[in-house]
Amino acid sequence: MTASPTVRLDVPQDDLFGIHNLPYGVYSLPGRAPRVGTRYGGHVVDLATLLGDEVFAGPSLNPFMAQGHDRWVQARSAIAGALRGEIPREAVHSAAEVTLHLPFDVADYVDFYASEHHAANLGRLFRPDNPEPLMPNWKHLPVGYHGRAASVVVSGTDIIRPAGQRKGPTDPAPVFGPSTRLDIEAELGFVVGTGNALGEPVAAGQAERHLFGVVLFNDWSARDIQAWEYVPLGPNLGKSFASTVSPWVVPLLALTEARVPTPVQVPEVLPYLALDAPWGLDIDLEVEWNGEVVSRPPYSAMYWSPAQMLAHLTVNGAPTRTGDLFASGTVSGPDKEQRGAFIELTWGGAQPVTVAGRQRTFLEDGDEVVLRATAPGPGGTRIGFGEARGRVVPARHGREG
Amino acid sequence: MTASPTVRLDVPQDDLFGIHNLPYGVYSLPGRAPRVGTRYGGHVVDLATLLGDEVFAGPSLNPFMAQGHDRWVQARSAIAGALRGEIPREAVHSAAEVTLHLPFDVADYVDFYASEHHAANLGRLFRPDNPEPLMPNWKHLPVGYHGRAASVVVSGTDIIRPAGQRKGPTDPAPVFGPSTRLDIEAELGFVVGTGNALGEPVAAGQAERHLFGVVLFNDWSARDIQAWEYVPLGPNLGKSFASTVSPWVVPLLALTEARVPTPVQVPEVLPYLALDAPWGLDIDLEVEWNGEVVSRPPYSAMYWSPAQMLAHLTVNGAPTRTGDLFASGTVSGPDKEQRGAFIELTWGGAQPVTVAGRQRTFLEDGDEVVLRATAPGPGGTRIGFGEARGRVVPARHGREG
Repeated sequence: MTASPTVRLDVPQDDLFGIHNLPYGVYSLPGRAPRVGTRYGGHVVDLATLLGDEVFAGPSLNPFMAQGHDRWVQARSAIAGALRGEIPREAVHSAAEVTLHLPFDVADYVDFYASEHHAANLGRLFRPDNPEPLMPNWKHLPVGYHGRAASVVVSGTDIIRPAGQRKGPTDPAPVFGPSTRLDIEAELGFVVGTGNALGEPVAAGQAERHLFGVVLFNDWSARDIQAWEYVPLGPNLGKSFASTVSPWVVPLLALTEARVPTPVQVPEVLPYLALDAPWGLDIDLEVEWNGEVVSRPPYSAMYWSPAQMLAHLTVNGAPTRTGDLFASGTVSGPDKEQRGAFIELTWGGAQPVTVAGRQRTFLEDGDEVVLRATAPGPGGTRIGFGEARGRVVPARHGREG
Repeated sequence: MTASPTVRLDVPQDDLFGIHNLPYGVYSLPGRAPRVGTRYGGHVVDLATLLGDEVFAGPSLNPFMAQGHDRWVQARSAIAGALRGEIPREAVHSAAEVTLHLPFDVADYVDFYASEHHAANLGRLFRPDNPEPLMPNWKHLPVGYHGRAASVVVSGTDIIRPAGQRKGPTDPAPVFGPSTRLDIEAELGFVVGTGNALGEPVAAGQAERHLFGVVLFNDWSARDIQAWEYVPLGPNLGKSFASTVSPWVVPLLALTEARVPTPVQVPEVLPYLALDAPWGLDIDLEVEWNGEVVSRPPYSAMYWSPAQMLAHLTVNGAPTRTGDLFASGTVSGPDKEQRGAFIELTWGGAQPVTVAGRQRTFLEDGDEVVLRATAPGPGGTRIGFGEARGRVVPARHGREG
């Protein structure tokens, strides 16, 4: 009998995928079925092999997430412990050789609107005649709407330019065609690990036990389609063609150093939205457009926190499920170079920005956008979120109307 | 060897669940796992046993629906043929002895707003200062929004009164508590049997091959929560607490006699919404409130058809999946006694109606609402949809805010 060969992985403490991160994802090797892995430095480590647990042997995080918070704590500790010692060589792959997949089965998807700066900017752009850029409800509840779960795609998926109806203010009738105002929204997404039953809301103080992790999220938006369709029932086709998530789900358990107070909320929120712990997240995003960083939105400036979003989402008794995804809405800070959507960055297209030497407003075919983020980890380290990448490809349909 | 006992079912041609209907549902016997059955007269017939096909042996219609349109045609013919002869006695149960379950796994759920009468009534009620009750986009596209799939429940599930924020026009700040304006919306729901891939829209002329069947749908609505939250991103908590579907999915194939032209659409729709076949549905709904029929909404008056809804939903490249559900929005006709929501029937609560001898506006705890519908079948028969029933029970949470 020969022992399986083992290996000891040497990853610096300050690697963005160091021992304090340990995100979960789904990977495959050529010709092999997808399985759950973690990213450790430049390696992808197979978790079923590492821990001898078949819950990781499938193509989705959902079975593991459904095991609940205590199990997440225990598994994270077991993974970190194992990675500090000798591990089976067969569990280790190079990050460069694997394909990454959508890491979880999306149940319901909700998009919030939690940045005061973004909401105020869009209010000024979409409703210029209104003296108050924020709607009266905005500071009383985290405004959000349901989006399409089926069109959540993993980083690297091409974004097909959507076709649809649009009507400019002076057009006599709507026209149909590929969107001419294709935009991004740089967001974070929050993944529900264990849900709540119908009629049993999640209190804000219990959110920690339900929230599994965090992903980067690009809520691609066709502003021309959206502007024409969105009254009175909200965005639909302007958003539902694609939303990109990063392949690595960073556990909420890895983000303890990133937890900061939210901005002071005035007026005081209703009791069901009150927080008993800091739920702001000191996560720094960056938006890269054709290789150039054009914005650095700070998540710490977000008005509404994920615990408040989950409490609000369920306060009417609505159930959530393993794999529910809710996103923050565009992350925009107070400064121009912190705006997380091009409609804000270029002020509705009226103030082009220079990208790779060209004046630009909305997305052209061939453009590529990459979101990245990091958060503080223990001892001055940083936790990386990887990337959410998408390239715009031409509309396949729609020219004929 | 003894032959299994057989039986011949004698169901009148004009039964609402006669040979021309044959809806699909999921039933269980006490202590047994749910399976797919059809309703035939007062019987529930187990389809795995009847046809010897294990696709019907599970707790959901999804595997069968995913087999596609040609298979739906073939199975329907096989079921009708079998039911005209001797069938295994063990396949037959009394409808009174089975429990009915949610018949399919809901993928994405979208609610439309397809009745001109309803949209105009709600425009007048929600935006009284606007001289035009319909929004400018309304006659150009079927307006719709995504809702919560997780809270779609089967007929008979109690409806827990939702709690949430509301703010009357003269209130200085929002208050929290159980909804005081709980309402219904009488709708039809359309079930997608086979979806479309991302980037490959469903043409209106191809909708027939994707649409599996039709259910009754009650989109319970908390008008006070909805009115405060819905700007600018649409309804969320005011709707997401529960939506009731009927347990029997009537196949679109059973509704050929019900297909009628939609009302004339002026202005002419864009080419992607043009119809090459009659897609209106001559289905008569009724709304029963505490045992009294208070409204009879005619589906034939609906402006937008399900083929147009599916074409619109996917024209931007959004994918649909087996189990997608899209609902029509409230079915309201031109007359007062044809209004499918109590907010319309009582004009925002200002004009109470008499129900069982009492003046009523919105729903009280203990109220029960039942939706029913029938459609024309061959030879003067009628096709029944069964019922979507729900009883309002008191809020469990929310008084403490």
